Amino acid sequence: MRALVFDDKLQFVPDISLPELTGAQWLLKIRRAGICNTDLELIDGMYNFSGILGHEFVAEVVEGAPEWVGKPVVGEINVGCGECDFCQKGIPSQCRDRKAVGIHTHPGAFADYLALTERNLHAVPPNIADDAAVFTEPLAAALEVLESTHISPQQRIIVVGVGKLGALVTQVLKLSGAGVIGLVRREKQAQLLDNWGIASAAYEELPKQRAQVVVDCTGTAEGFAIALDLVEARGTIVLKSTYKGKPQADLTQVAVREIRVVGSRCGSFDGALRLLAAGLIDTQSLVDAHYPIEQGLEAFQAAKQPGAMKVLLDF
Amino acid sequence: MRALVFDDKLQFVPDISLPELTGAQWLLKIRRAGICNTDLELIDGMYNFSGILGHEFVAEVVEGAPEWVGKPVVGEINVGCGECDFCQKGIPSQCRDRKAVGIHTHPGAFADYLALTERNLHAVPPNIADDAAVFTEPLAAALEVLESTHISPQQRIIVVGVGKLGALVTQVLKLSGAGVIGLVRREKQAQLLDNWGIASAAYEELPKQRAQVVVDCTGTAEGFAIALDLVEARGTIVLKSTYKGKPQADLTQVAVREIRVVGSRCGSFDGALRLLAAGLIDTQSLVDAHYPIEQGLEAFQAAKQPGAMKVLLDF
Repeated sequence: MRALVFDDKLQFVPDISLPELTGAQWLLKIRRAGICNTDLELIDGMYNFSGILGHEFVAEVVEGAPEWVGKPVVGEINVGCGECDFCQKGIPSQCRDRKAVGIHTHPGAFADYLALTERNLHAVPPNIADDAAVFTEPLAAALEVLESTHISPQQRIIVVGVGKLGALVTQVLKLSGAGVIGLVRREKQAQLLDNWGIASAAYEELPKQRAQVVVDCTGTAEGFAIALDLVEARGTIVLKSTYKGKPQADLTQVAVREIRVVGSRCGSFDGALRLLAAGLIDTQSLVDAHYPIEQGLEAFQAAKQPGAMKVLLDF
Repeated sequence: MRALVFDDKLQFVPDISLPELTGAQWLLKIRRAGICNTDLELIDGMYNFSGILGHEFVAEVVEGAPEWVGKPVVGEINVGCGECDFCQKGIPSQCRDRKAVGIHTHPGAFADYLALTERNLHAVPPNIADDAAVFTEPLAAALEVLESTHISPQQRIIVVGVGKLGALVTQVLKLSGAGVIGLVRREKQAQLLDNWGIASAAYEELPKQRAQVVVDCTGTAEGFAIALDLVEARGTIVLKSTYKGKPQADLTQVAVREIRVVGSRCGSFDGALRLLAAGLIDTQSLVDAHYPIEQGLEAFQAAKQPGAMKVLLDF
């Protein structure tokens, strides 16, 4: 099968062998996949991963329970051990011996076929097109903000970094009725938010220490510093991204102003599929380009451009 | 009156003029005061303060409502504007134009007399001796851990840094029924905890990522890194101290393991006085030495020694 493989460098491999099923795995034929910032970090060597990349996908069941075969599915990325305290508590995303599809010790979805454990799969309702279903994973991550902290309609919420994930976060937060402002640097981002009826502002335009919640989608020390500047005392900063190295952080501000800094990662696929099925999330505007899997390297180049939104891989 | 004044350097001043009362202030005669780590940071120039230092004290009302005159009181350190949104919400500790006794634009308690706004004062029950009452402010700060996060009897909680504040935090947490471990570096600290029936351990002895709550009382980048190592996924790190500069912090760990980092500062004087009146907190073991106010500079030298616990000033 065809695959995008990373092993010190990214390569398109036309003839890698098909995955073998083990345990409760089903065989999926990938229909479409999305390139995420984590993929860009992976090929920068950030997580010491080698193998087939990719964790955002929509696929079709090829081998599995008969009633599922031929049906479209999306798949959660965390494969838990099933044994540890977190798995027992129903939190495989924090399994102590966790694998993550295309990220950590598990082959990914940038390939014709993927073997994935049955319990990670969710059926895609028929009214969700592949181009939207492929956003289930990042939309679930955006929804996790609502798990990480209590969002209320009275709040002023600022999203720092309106990229691929931040754009989904602003849409999800808008649905809460809260006052959402996207902190943008590019006219393209401002236009996107404006189309959705979401306010945008540059950093200099925003009053300091007036937001109850700030979501940092930047993964940079500067983004965290901006979040600290904007959040009010006893407010919450939600961290949606990983950071390069160990950024300097003004923990004194956190202590003295009694701020809550909350890490937030993978979220509810069921919730994401409900919102997509209800047509409440615009994913179409987020698609920058489609590339066939053979042109995966060009696709990664396009995804790397500053300000790029979602680049999809077709199979 | 006599006072310890900091203005680029710390000085004992024998004849500073008495404070003049303004607004709803009462005049207090200080009976005993305690030196806190914040005082040590203040004389290192950390908060750009000049004036009379001191914010931990027990005093006697000299001028105020007639029924209070002659009575012992302790005083909250945050003087709010009374007008801003935080003051209106009953959170003067986060007032947008906050003064703090002996810390920020308000004279402190290392002097014979202090003028303090009436609403900051709390009567000291008769069974609390001055040597215990002087701990009300830091004990309230320790109690704030219980406001900052939900502590439950099932949890494993580690307190990193068993100094003046950490020792109070361990005692408060012990009362919750939770499994409390103090991370200690000195035999003196281990002995103290042992006397209270609280477990202690060195860092190397503790399993990683197994504590639901870690309280960092160190105010160092190293302390925060240790807290991150010890807290389990979705656990909470409570920050009880200010940090020098902007420490490097592994925010990726916070994001990926969905940790909550919560700043925690001043707390409930009522709660602290109830615990002291009930005899549930041992403050006596925490007193290293008494110095008369005239020997304030020597007292600060003693308070600065590594491993020093509370140094009290007598008037």
